[in-house]
Amino acid sequence: MISKLWLKVVMFVSAIALSGAVYAIPSVPDETYEALGLDRGATPKQLHEALVKRYKDPEQGFGKGTMGDYWEPIPLSTYMDPATFYEPPVSMRDKADRKECVECHSDESPVWVNAWKKSAHANLDKVRALKPEDPTYYKKGKLEDVEKNLRSLGYLKEGEQLKEVSCIDCHVNIKQEGKIDHSKDLIMPTADVCGKCHLQEFAERESERDTLIWPHGQWPDGRPSHALDYKANVETTVWAAMPQREVAEGCTMCHMNQNKCDTCHTRHEFSVAESRKPEACATCHSGVDHNNWEAYSMSKHGKIVAMMGNNWNWDVPLKDAYSKGGQTAPTCAGCHMEYEGEYSHNMVRKIRWANYPFVPGIAENINSEWSEERLDAWVVTCTQCHSERFARSYLDLMDKGTLQGLAKYQDAHEVVDKLYNEGLLAGQKTNRPNPPEPEKPGFMIFTQLFWSQDNNPASMELKVLEMGENDLAKMHVGLAHVNPGGWTYTEGWGPMNRAYVEVQDENTRIREMIALKERVAKLETKRTSLLDLDGTAEKISLGGLGGGMLLAGTIALAGWRKRKQNEA
Amino acid sequence: MISKLWLKVVMFVSAIALSGAVYAIPSVPDETYEALGLDRGATPKQLHEALVKRYKDPEQGFGKGTMGDYWEPIPLSTYMDPATFYEPPVSMRDKADRKECVECHSDESPVWVNAWKKSAHANLDKVRALKPEDPTYYKKGKLEDVEKNLRSLGYLKEGEQLKEVSCIDCHVNIKQEGKIDHSKDLIMPTADVCGKCHLQEFAERESERDTLIWPHGQWPDGRPSHALDYKANVETTVWAAMPQREVAEGCTMCHMNQNKCDTCHTRHEFSVAESRKPEACATCHSGVDHNNWEAYSMSKHGKIVAMMGNNWNWDVPLKDAYSKGGQTAPTCAGCHMEYEGEYSHNMVRKIRWANYPFVPGIAENINSEWSEERLDAWVVTCTQCHSERFARSYLDLMDKGTLQGLAKYQDAHEVVDKLYNEGLLAGQKTNRPNPPEPEKPGFMIFTQLFWSQDNNPASMELKVLEMGENDLAKMHVGLAHVNPGGWTYTEGWGPMNRAYVEVQDENTRIREMIALKERVAKLETKRTSLLDLDGTAEKISLGGLGGGMLLAGTIALAGWRKRKQNEA
Amino acid sequence: MISKLWLKVVMFVSAIALSGAVYAIPSVPDETYEALGLDRGATPKQLHEALVKRYKDPEQGFGKGTMGDYWEPIPLSTYMDPATFYEPPVSMRDKADRKECVECHSDESPVWVNAWKKSAHANLDKVRALKPEDPTYYKKGKLEDVEKNLRSLGYLKEGEQLKEVSCIDCHVNIKQEGKIDHSKDLIMPTADVCGKCHLQEFAERESERDTLIWPHGQWPDGRPSHALDYKANVETTVWAAMPQREVAEGCTMCHMNQNKCDTCHTRHEFSVAESRKPEACATCHSGVDHNNWEAYSMSKHGKIVAMMGNNWNWDVPLKDAYSKGGQTAPTCAGCHMEYEGEYSHNMVRKIRWANYPFVPGIAENINSEWSEERLDAWVVTCTQCHSERFARSYLDLMDKGTLQGLAKYQDAHEVVDKLYNEGLLAGQKTNRPNPPEPEKPGFMIFTQLFWSQDNNPASMELKVLEMGENDLAKMHVGLAHVNPGGWTYTEGWGPMNRAYVEVQDENTRIREMIALKERVAKLETKRTSLLDLDGTAEKISLGGLGGGMLLAGTIALAGWRKRKQNEA
Repeated sequence: MISKLWLKVVMFVSAIALSGAVYAIPSVPDETYEALGLDRGATPKQLHEALVKRYKDPEQGFGKGTMGDYWEPIPLSTYMDPATFYEPPVSMRDKADRKECVECHSDESPVWVNAWKKSAHANLDKVRALKPEDPTYYKKGKLEDVEKNLRSLGYLKEGEQLKEVSCIDCHVNIKQEGKIDHSKDLIMPTADVCGKCHLQEFAERESERDTLIWPHGQWPDGRPSHALDYKANVETTVWAAMPQREVAEGCTMCHMNQNKCDTCHTRHEFSVAESRKPEACATCHSGVDHNNWEAYSMSKHGKIVAMMGNNWNWDVPLKDAYSKGGQTAPTCAGCHMEYEGEYSHNMVRKIRWANYPFVPGIAENINSEWSEERLDAWVVTCTQCHSERFARSYLDLMDKGTLQGLAKYQDAHEVVDKLYNEGLLAGQKTNRPNPPEPEKPGFMIFTQLFWSQDNNPASMELKVLEMGENDLAKMHVGLAHVNPGGWTYTEGWGPMNRAYVEVQDENTRIREMIALKERVAKLETKRTSLLDLDGTAEKISLGGLGGGMLLAGTIALAGWRKRKQNEA
Repeated sequence: MISKLWLKVVMFVSAIALSGAVYAIPSVPDETYEALGLDRGATPKQLHEALVKRYKDPEQGFGKGTMGDYWEPIPLSTYMDPATFYEPPVSMRDKADRKECVECHSDESPVWVNAWKKSAHANLDKVRALKPEDPTYYKKGKLEDVEKNLRSLGYLKEGEQLKEVSCIDCHVNIKQEGKIDHSKDLIMPTADVCGKCHLQEFAERESERDTLIWPHGQWPDGRPSHALDYKANVETTVWAAMPQREVAEGCTMCHMNQNKCDTCHTRHEFSVAESRKPEACATCHSGVDHNNWEAYSMSKHGKIVAMMGNNWNWDVPLKDAYSKGGQTAPTCAGCHMEYEGEYSHNMVRKIRWANYPFVPGIAENINSEWSEERLDAWVVTCTQCHSERFARSYLDLMDKGTLQGLAKYQDAHEVVDKLYNEGLLAGQKTNRPNPPEPEKPGFMIFTQLFWSQDNNPASMELKVLEMGENDLAKMHVGLAHVNPGGWTYTEGWGPMNRAYVEVQDENTRIREMIALKERVAKLETKRTSLLDLDGTAEKISLGGLGGGMLLAGTIALAGWRKRKQNEA
Repeated sequence: MISKLWLKVVMFVSAIALSGAVYAIPSVPDETYEALGLDRGATPKQLHEALVKRYKDPEQGFGKGTMGDYWEPIPLSTYMDPATFYEPPVSMRDKADRKECVECHSDESPVWVNAWKKSAHANLDKVRALKPEDPTYYKKGKLEDVEKNLRSLGYLKEGEQLKEVSCIDCHVNIKQEGKIDHSKDLIMPTADVCGKCHLQEFAERESERDTLIWPHGQWPDGRPSHALDYKANVETTVWAAMPQREVAEGCTMCHMNQNKCDTCHTRHEFSVAESRKPEACATCHSGVDHNNWEAYSMSKHGKIVAMMGNNWNWDVPLKDAYSKGGQTAPTCAGCHMEYEGEYSHNMVRKIRWANYPFVPGIAENINSEWSEERLDAWVVTCTQCHSERFARSYLDLMDKGTLQGLAKYQDAHEVVDKLYNEGLLAGQKTNRPNPPEPEKPGFMIFTQLFWSQDNNPASMELKVLEMGENDLAKMHVGLAHVNPGGWTYTEGWGPMNRAYVEVQDENTRIREMIALKERVAKLETKRTSLLDLDGTAEKISLGGLGGGMLLAGTIALAGWRKRKQNEA
């Protein structure tokens, strides 16, 4: 016993020595300390202030963005970017203190209070009383970290403990005393507010900005990520351009992790067990263009979790999930929050394909040293449950299968690109209005997935656009989540084969029509010169007949690149 | 203690005084008592008789309906409308008494008996023994209500308790004594049979007929609802007209709540916990034209229930679900059975959009007083968990988003309507047979979703029909159930954008073809007059060339209106 | 009590007398003993040897198959057909004994070890200690059977008990002693390896080869089945022909039950409770062409399991699931592993439609004696929970509904078949390359679902191909799994109606184009003869103009037949 204690002391001292500081948070990567101009010995206050400064900087992704002049918030925007749009409710002039908040809202919005009562926030004493043998004992340590942060930030005095976390602590200020005025004092907590107490988690999440730097700028720095997903949203041209704001703001309902923490940690129970379950990611990571949930939940991995998960202890931290929680199959969080054996809120350190294999430079990069290092990190993940040979065999299948899908997409793309360059798409020369500002006209641009007018886009143009954006993405996602139907017949290859066939059919049909028109025109020309005495021969003016080459087609892929720089 | 007892007596007397009657059931709305010509003091017997009289009236929705001559039941119809089609099994001449039913069916159909043994029906004594501290104590009160009803109906004497509810009580008669003959005495219980004991629930359900009266007859009185969903089924023309009876009767498998209670309360356990869970609604409220389940279950609401629901007590009644059951996220029943803070089997009192925004008069009505009152009722629902400002912000997004989808649908509709009016749809003038009787020919009629022959309907006609019936419905449902992918990219807007693009493409193609045909015709005419000596020039007879305006297009929406009046 | 004991003895002796042998396994059908040339008294060793001889015979479905020259394995093939492709890892030269395997892999691949520790394999003593009142007491009997097998095979001496089942027993050899060399001794267990201990289950599974003999060879003997699903895979032409091996091997990820047991019994917990749950089948039995999971899980059956299943005991064997496990709704295993009241790993004894109603001879056979006997077996299944009249009514609906879908498919097929016979499909005469070897050119062949090039296949050809392969299959599956939306509007009839409409539209369009081309040609011919002095009139050479009848169309269905013979 004595020797063990001694060992712990040595390890603790070594940890300090190695990290160089009492305050260092091992899970926050060096890249972030560097980007913030801090050394690892920075105090919680220093770290929080540096993070918040960047977080609230409009030049670095805060707020309405560069296209902010083109759109107005809707009422719900108040809650999706509260730092920019939230105002306390002017008509609600009631004043209340710490205790009255809880009392009154027990009637006003009872489920808030019910949920909060179940939360760790409402049960700090229980957390403090946890014994080492309890699988959630780690929470006691978390609470001590929180108090360390609050001491650094000046909210707690040395030796003072946090008494409670109640409505007022998050919605006005930590340890707020006395009466507050709803109409003046109320705030909607943003990530930096949560980050006062939960500094480690906030810093981990913010480190996504620093650890996903694409070698050839395939995507903007730090993207795609949760840390910059609102920026990605507001910098997407069609999002800013669409007059249908209620449709556009549907995107924001997921693209708001940058702003808030409650997409994963739903209020007001803030159950960590909940946030560890795969369903926690499903509402956002699903659907026609990023069907991660569908692919995973239908995979054997996902189904084992569905079948056996009720026997597991979801209250243990991720690092103990397999060993102490009894888990025997992987979850979203278990694989994507892991990096080199450690778990954090930075989920982008192993990103290689970023869901969208058609983005220029992604496939070309997939065997680079940058990507191989990330592949090796995946092998670490997979070998918790599989042999290295098995893991590498599967990841090889994933990469090659994705490339096969990409090639099929490119074949179809070429056909439609050629039609566009020849001006032959339906209505291309006669009936193709420009998209709304600030979008610019273009071929196969992301905007066309959500905006259309007259013959912009053409049907085959949209088909290939969706083939890349949706079907190819789903093919990769199916491969990445080991769902065979997801890349062979139900999603991925089967639908891409179908799209290719339709594109080829339409190409043949368009060119047959052109050929026939030319024959008719020839007949008309001859008749006009030889026979047509009344001069009424129809002018050859319909779209698609003859026509100069359009240059726009040659910049088709540039549109994609631009779009992807604007999205996360 | 004494004072509390005294208080209870006072409250009980007051309740009688306020309601005006010992027998009043507060959850049954005045509208129903009025419609039945009863005052609130009506006895259970009076109420049941009045309800059954209406329930069994062919003029008010009972039985085969006005198109009954056009279709014959299939064998399974026996069980879907037993009041009309069920006959006891003539070949089954065994006689059995109360006890023998159970004994014999323990071998014959053991799961019936196993399930029944778990039910409250088989455990009346346990229900009677419930203590006030038990969360299911309310069942004791329910049983007392049942006995009160049975006394009024003459099944129980004053002071007599119900001993058991066994096979024979529901499948022959309550408290049936002696041997019964399968081939003569057996019945399949219909809603009114369940309603003898469960009068409150039956009356609540039947009240849907009285509380959903559309201000401009957008839908028929009392529809859409569970109370009249079989009527809606048999009054839908294509349902009656289709020769494929086994396909048509697939619709009936959900559209039979009017007839029976076991769609939600599955036999023979009749678990109320089960019927409270969202999955209880999923089989019917799902699919391409009313994806309520998909939208909800993929929303954050639905996912929280999926993740955390196992920790909640589903045995408590809905009114206690949040406060005592531990529930922290909404279910189907929790929101749709609630009205002004009370819960009942009337699920239509907050209906505003009725799933189908394209139905004429629905969108126009959405800001009316009628609709605003219902919106306010929704705000009551939402503010159990959200602030009023948040709730109104979201509901505003829902309404506006729905209107944006409707506008896109109307744009596409107009294009195809114009083609139809000009007679230009594929095969419209040459190859468009009439639908089967009793359906009448029409443009973009509901029937075309399930019936087609030759070129009726045209592909683009069906596309826009589905755009309204499916995609726009899904867009609204996605909005209503807070599933962002459900109105932006996966369902709703994205698919509607795609459909619009295809319609525009086809419109351009058709008109280019017409133009080319006209050029050829002109060449032929001139050649015929000047050069063609053998007189064989093809007559201009193919569909789409020239052609008078069709009037039918102008009544396009009338078809929808008619259909919707026939459906629930 | 004495008389009951006496009765048991009599029954036991009778059982031996009737079966003719101590070793007979009642659940293995006579057909299998006959096919193997064994009598029912065969010892476990004799039975295992005979099964393995057939199992490993390339003439009877083992290994690469008849198209093996056309494809090469990918790295992952190692694990999908280990008997053919697995080699021990040459770079891994560590030697380890029984105990060291576990120790080392506790670090190397910890979840393997965690999962194994939960398995029956790691807890043989607990199994032996089970009391008769334990619902899993049957496992004690299973263990005794295993030991009986091992004694017969010479692994255990008479009276010797099995001490443990550890890594080495399955991955090297049973009761392996001493150090093994990873690079030389390691094996990946195939079904016959599992079958040494689990002989009954292996023999039951292998009996699928013997009990599914189609009366007119609609499918090859013993197919479709788990027992020959890898053969079905490698004998499918497009699978062998596709250059995209990573796409093709996606099919193998499910089509490998022939080779291994861990698709259902996932390693290394091998939980039987897990394998009894419906999700165990979902990953493979799902998707666009066999949506069994989607149909079932959205049905009332599936939803009751989802809602109530957590209250049931999944540890009891299938035969006790309803009576002792508390189950009140059916699962995949509960219905498909049952035959005449008994449960086994032969899941094909009630097959009638085999998912694909368009396969020639299937519909024609559906009322044959062969099929009626199987229908009667289904009635036995259904009457556990339903009356016979109800069961037969529903099964009648299922058959007739399927035939209605088939007729709609045939209507559309005829239209496209005629176009093909006239050479009118897009690019049919000008731009239709042959598929890769060993596939042969053909109309509407299975290959076209996964391979396309230029105008092979045409869009409408693929549409009807998918209508049969996907939509009609889904329609039947929806009917078979009592999911009304699955055969009316969401899947099945609705999509088939849509496909029919598109086919008719395209047919009209193509024929209008042909007519117009003919008019132009006539104009050109006349002009050429009368007026065209420069001789430049375009030759009538474009596809679809005139053209002789193609004979290929008449053999269209033959392609299907061929394909189905190659698939399971």
